[in-house]
Amino acid sequence: MARYCFISRVAPEKIEVYRERHAAVWPDMLRALRDAGWSHYSLFLSDDGLLVGHFDAESREAAQEAMSNTEVNRLWQAEMAKLFVGDGSPDEEFVYLPEVFNLEEQLAEAEGR
Amino acid sequence: MARYCFISRVAPEKIEVYRERHAAVWPDMLRALRDAGWSHYSLFLSDDGLLVGHFDAESREAAQEAMSNTEVNRLWQAEMAKLFVGDGSPDEEFVYLPEVFNLEEQLAEAEGR
Repeated sequence: MARYCFISRVAPEKIEVYRERHAAVWPDMLRALRDAGWSHYSLFLSDDGLLVGHFDAESREAAQEAMSNTEVNRLWQAEMAKLFVGDGSPDEEFVYLPEVFNLEEQLAEAEGR
Repeated sequence: MARYCFISRVAPEKIEVYRERHAAVWPDMLRALRDAGWSHYSLFLSDDGLLVGHFDAESREAAQEAMSNTEVNRLWQAEMAKLFVGDGSPDEEFVYLPEVFNLEEQLAEAEGR
């Protein structure tokens, strides 16, 4: 299982709406994410609109592809698009950052497992 | 178990060194983190120096306090300080972002658990 981190930017005047919407994501969207292979998924939002997402998946490409094939994701992203800086579907504009440290992987190596 | 996310900024000219150092963290530092209650801990670094950290802990305050009491952390942070923008111990300057979405928590609620 790999760990992923992406960043994006919520429009400053939409931060409160973004928080409210994400405090109560549609149950169908939650189940679609789970079924598409997203796990340990959290979003964090700074006061200035920096959005950070973290999730685990067997493969980011497969997890994103599986979501992009769902109707609920299309509807959700269309609503979320109004809250982001930039055009297009928010989930297609996430910028992924490379992982440079993984505690559990290095511990396993250090202990010879 | 709560999930935490912090950001910081690595000096642009030190990004390569930061990557190298974090590809081989001292085993004593790894074990100190584990013993201090840090888990599922990863760091992600963008090409422009934005550093994002993500970890789980029962309590961020307790996990940080437990690390700050170790000699290995003092030595590690003193070496890392040279790589960051800003003065002081890097781990004391992390900016934590509030969590606005947690897939597993909302799934548990949606399914009535």
